[in-house]
Amino acid sequence: LITVSHIAQAIDGQVEGDPELLISDVCELKNGSEGCISYLTQQGFKDIFADTDSSAVIVDQNIQLPQNGKTLIRVNNPALGFIKTIHLLRPQVKLIGEIHNTAVVTEKLVSGANVTISANTVIEVGVVLGDDVYIGPGSFIGQNVQIGSGTRIEANVSIYHDIYIGNNVHIDSGSVIGADGFGLVSEGGIHHRFPHVGSIEIGNDVLIGANCCIDRGTIGNTIVGEQTKLDNQIQIAHNVQIGKGCIIAGQVGIAGSSVLGNYVTLAGQVGIVGHIEIGDGVVVASKSAVMQSVEAGCFISGIPAQDHGEKRRQDVAIKKLPELLKRVKYLENEIKKFKKD
Amino acid sequence: LITVSHIAQAIDGQVEGDPELLISDVCELKNGSEGCISYLTQQGFKDIFADTDSSAVIVDQNIQLPQNGKTLIRVNNPALGFIKTIHLLRPQVKLIGEIHNTAVVTEKLVSGANVTISANTVIEVGVVLGDDVYIGPGSFIGQNVQIGSGTRIEANVSIYHDIYIGNNVHIDSGSVIGADGFGLVSEGGIHHRFPHVGSIEIGNDVLIGANCCIDRGTIGNTIVGEQTKLDNQIQIAHNVQIGKGCIIAGQVGIAGSSVLGNYVTLAGQVGIVGHIEIGDGVVVASKSAVMQSVEAGCFISGIPAQDHGEKRRQDVAIKKLPELLKRVKYLENEIKKFKKD
Amino acid sequence: LITVSHIAQAIDGQVEGDPELLISDVCELKNGSEGCISYLTQQGFKDIFADTDSSAVIVDQNIQLPQNGKTLIRVNNPALGFIKTIHLLRPQVKLIGEIHNTAVVTEKLVSGANVTISANTVIEVGVVLGDDVYIGPGSFIGQNVQIGSGTRIEANVSIYHDIYIGNNVHIDSGSVIGADGFGLVSEGGIHHRFPHVGSIEIGNDVLIGANCCIDRGTIGNTIVGEQTKLDNQIQIAHNVQIGKGCIIAGQVGIAGSSVLGNYVTLAGQVGIVGHIEIGDGVVVASKSAVMQSVEAGCFISGIPAQDHGEKRRQDVAIKKLPELLKRVKYLENEIKKFKKD
Repeated sequence: LITVSHIAQAIDGQVEGDPELLISDVCELKNGSEGCISYLTQQGFKDIFADTDSSAVIVDQNIQLPQNGKTLIRVNNPALGFIKTIHLLRPQVKLIGEIHNTAVVTEKLVSGANVTISANTVIEVGVVLGDDVYIGPGSFIGQNVQIGSGTRIEANVSIYHDIYIGNNVHIDSGSVIGADGFGLVSEGGIHHRFPHVGSIEIGNDVLIGANCCIDRGTIGNTIVGEQTKLDNQIQIAHNVQIGKGCIIAGQVGIAGSSVLGNYVTLAGQVGIVGHIEIGDGVVVASKSAVMQSVEAGCFISGIPAQDHGEKRRQDVAIKKLPELLKRVKYLENEIKKFKKD
Repeated sequence: LITVSHIAQAIDGQVEGDPELLISDVCELKNGSEGCISYLTQQGFKDIFADTDSSAVIVDQNIQLPQNGKTLIRVNNPALGFIKTIHLLRPQVKLIGEIHNTAVVTEKLVSGANVTISANTVIEVGVVLGDDVYIGPGSFIGQNVQIGSGTRIEANVSIYHDIYIGNNVHIDSGSVIGADGFGLVSEGGIHHRFPHVGSIEIGNDVLIGANCCIDRGTIGNTIVGEQTKLDNQIQIAHNVQIGKGCIIAGQVGIAGSSVLGNYVTLAGQVGIVGHIEIGDGVVVASKSAVMQSVEAGCFISGIPAQDHGEKRRQDVAIKKLPELLKRVKYLENEIKKFKKD
Repeated sequence: LITVSHIAQAIDGQVEGDPELLISDVCELKNGSEGCISYLTQQGFKDIFADTDSSAVIVDQNIQLPQNGKTLIRVNNPALGFIKTIHLLRPQVKLIGEIHNTAVVTEKLVSGANVTISANTVIEVGVVLGDDVYIGPGSFIGQNVQIGSGTRIEANVSIYHDIYIGNNVHIDSGSVIGADGFGLVSEGGIHHRFPHVGSIEIGNDVLIGANCCIDRGTIGNTIVGEQTKLDNQIQIAHNVQIGKGCIIAGQVGIAGSSVLGNYVTLAGQVGIVGHIEIGDGVVVASKSAVMQSVEAGCFISGIPAQDHGEKRRQDVAIKKLPELLKRVKYLENEIKKFKKD
């Protein structure tokens, strides 16, 4: 149990109401509980706020709200304040910092302080681990992989040899990092697979969701820039280069050698063909297929992707198309009549 | 070897032909084999029936068929009758009900009768297993997970902590249940990941295919209702709520907080955006992207999805569009001529 | 270090320049390094060639190139020559040919010469392995699986029981081979899953990328023909039959019982509905949905897929559609005026 004023201090907020109120946990605003704290984003939900059962709510500095008798903490960024509050109320379990006796590890493992290697992991020769690394059960780390401090790899992840992973990276279960890319050379009906001698560089603070695949480069490296966040089931092909701070939603696929700038946003199930460049800050709507290079700052959608505004106008027009066919038929008849006269 | 009459009794059918015929196995109707039994659905395939080499066929009560000298079993639902016949002829291997000596399990594991824990599994503290549970090789079950009776988890599945799984659930290999959702709060170019303190509730008789991902709720729970069946490579985001008896085909993605009613059908590669509601019995055609809430009973398709009939009419019209452009050009010329006169 | 003439001899090429030049490694043409060799495909990149820092370049027999002082090896197929050169300069590590002491293997395992079974694998009874097979860490091989000589299965692969895998097959991490297909029979709100008694046949020289799923046949077998290559995250449903030499890109899904001919190419994120036939040599553009059977040799695209040329013409026409609506409106007004007169 901690007081509202304790939380407010930790998240740099101002209390409106009872600073001595005791808080036991976080809760949703809609399904709130007494003794718990929730948050309200700027975008609205004022009706839900009015009826909430939570005892305290983190809200925006300047938002106007109906009176509901709840204690408020006003902050600059309520969502961020709430994240910090979760960390306060649900402190993360300290890592044990031990190598489980069923882990298969060579004596030559170079590893920092407080490293946790879980049961049934397999870590090959030449691996280097930073401080506070966590390797989940059943994961495989190939030869000469380097993993930076604070990185957390969940259960049943597969990391092939000679991959470079930065600090504070998080890789969820089932992801596969470092398989050879899909490079084929065909001759006489035989498809020869390109042996991939390149690698992968994953920057600091990258998130890789569950069941993702990132292929190694053919000769050069596949690159995922720092702060880039990948959702689940994403496919990143060989020699793709992704900049900093990109947000890539679930089931996106990026084909070989394409280059993404910084802070690119790809919504769910987007496809990017190979060998193109996507400029900084580009936003691609869900389900789109990007077939050619895109300049910085564009918002695009469609298959093939084009300017989103254009796409919307075309979508509206298509709905009128069956009727348009009738209208043109009518005009043709009218013209025919005129010509007869 | 069992007799046709034995099968007929088990599946509540009437024999037409030789009840004492001995059957050794099931087979396809098309590639039938002597001594084997196949089935014919109502939808047709009468030509294949006429030429089949199988010795007996399970058919619909009322279907009219050409004479081919084969023994028939007439039932209400041939496919269901055939499923029961497979179970008769290929009885499932009884589980061994043992914990393999390479499984990493704590002494405190609470487990029902006849539980099988395969080689190289890792089961963390606080896990509770019902009767007749099977955990396949290499799977990981996190802290405090509860798994109901008769549930079968195949090889290399990853289940994070504090997940609730019902009875008779089947989870195929490579699936990842309980990773944190893709909730980010961005400030100053930094994307902070939301710590997910919610969980997942998977109802009784749910099927989760291979390499699926179901993310845990941010605060509340992600829910998959009883009897819902998921094919392979499906992505269910945080706080999604899926009703009862839904059928979700391969490579579907459902974004955060969306709500599906009961008996919804999503065909392959469908995408559902976040924060919308899909009513009971909605059918979404393959490859569609559902961008807004849908009322119960609708059949929709397209990107963005709309009424399927409308979509079909538009598709037909689009095929006429290149020619329509010429027709309008012709009309414009005619009008120009008239105006000149 | 090997000489250019040594490489030229190995790849059946003619040296242009210094045959005694020593080469230490392969490199990219663009980011070339001294002492290294790269290659130039016929398609161009002559500017990059002019500026390259690599010391030698494998080029086409007949290509005209600017003088840049580099040593050339002229061959028939530069990409294929480069693949052979990689094998020369980066010889593959010889397999150890041992069974790791943490592998769970029965005494009855039938296995050829020089088989490597890595740490924490689980191999069930009745498995038969050819010569030079490699099974990666954490992989699971179910009962009675047969794996041909030279086949390589990476880490954390799951192969269910009774699957037939040919020679020189490569399966990347996280793939799941042999789960039951998504066959449901519904009655009274209950979806009964079809017990799958069929199997899977994977031909020689097949490639299966990471996190793919191939479901077993309901009664007959799912088939992947020899020389067919699958990228990552591909879903092959039950009873699908794929011919020889097909190339299937990432995130493709093929629904149940569909049949692909030989040398079919499916680009990324394509969907194929169930129960259709795709003829030999068909090419399907990325993101397309194939909804009906396709004759041999066609190039198709779109949702639903149609002739690619038609599709392109329609796409061009759609861009003119918003303006076309205005043009028709104008014509209607003109006609109205004429009729008034």
